[in-house]
Amino acid sequence: MARVVVDVMLKPEILDPQGQAVQRALPRLGFEGVTDVRQGKRFELELQGPVDGAALDRVREMARTFLANTVIEDFTVRVEAVEAAEGAGDDAPGAAGDAAVAGGVS
Amino acid sequence: MARVVVDVMLKPEILDPQGQAVQRALPRLGFEGVTDVRQGKRFELELQGPVDGAALDRVREMARTFLANTVIEDFTVRVEAVEAAEGAGDDAPGAAGDAAVAGGVS
Repeated sequence: MARVVVDVMLKPEILDPQGQAVQRALPRLGFEGVTDVRQGKRFELELQGPVDGAALDRVREMARTFLANTVIEDFTVRVEAVEAAEGAGDDAPGAAGDAAVAGGVS
Repeated sequence: MARVVVDVMLKPEILDPQGQAVQRALPRLGFEGVTDVRQGKRFELELQGPVDGAALDRVREMARTFLANTVIEDFTVRVEAVEAAEGAGDDAPGAAGDAAVAGGVS
């Protein structure tokens, strides 16, 4: 079983009121020094079978046609190592196993 | 300027109706072989100054107290290389890829 992650973010030129609300709230909560916040969506898909180029092409097609609104959103598709023990501790192994696969759509 | 990404996902034992709706829609759209979908949130924070241990501790505190509801959600904090037209010689840490920093909260 393999996990593919699709991150969907508003394009940089699109206003992000959710992110702005978060950013404006942070100083009131005592957190200074955050100059910008963007909020987006993260989809974790568990795929049957191997995650090869064809499977990733299918996921990219899903993202383009269904998960993201490519008029206003960019997406990235990447394979992520499935962590064995979620919440077991810090320094999760994730990063070394991540492999970025597709850039955003413009 | 450095970017820190906070991913917030429902804990595995919490029902995810949004993800289920996506999963059920996929076969109708011609996409087979996706056995599970979880939907969560992704926050991209731009921080002033260096992203060192102290800064990441602050971001973790933000995530724990504000960005995530740790009763039902896990979060991860990681530094991400800022793509696109970043000037050469920029002190972007984690340029060799993402560096996972914090595991989920249990």
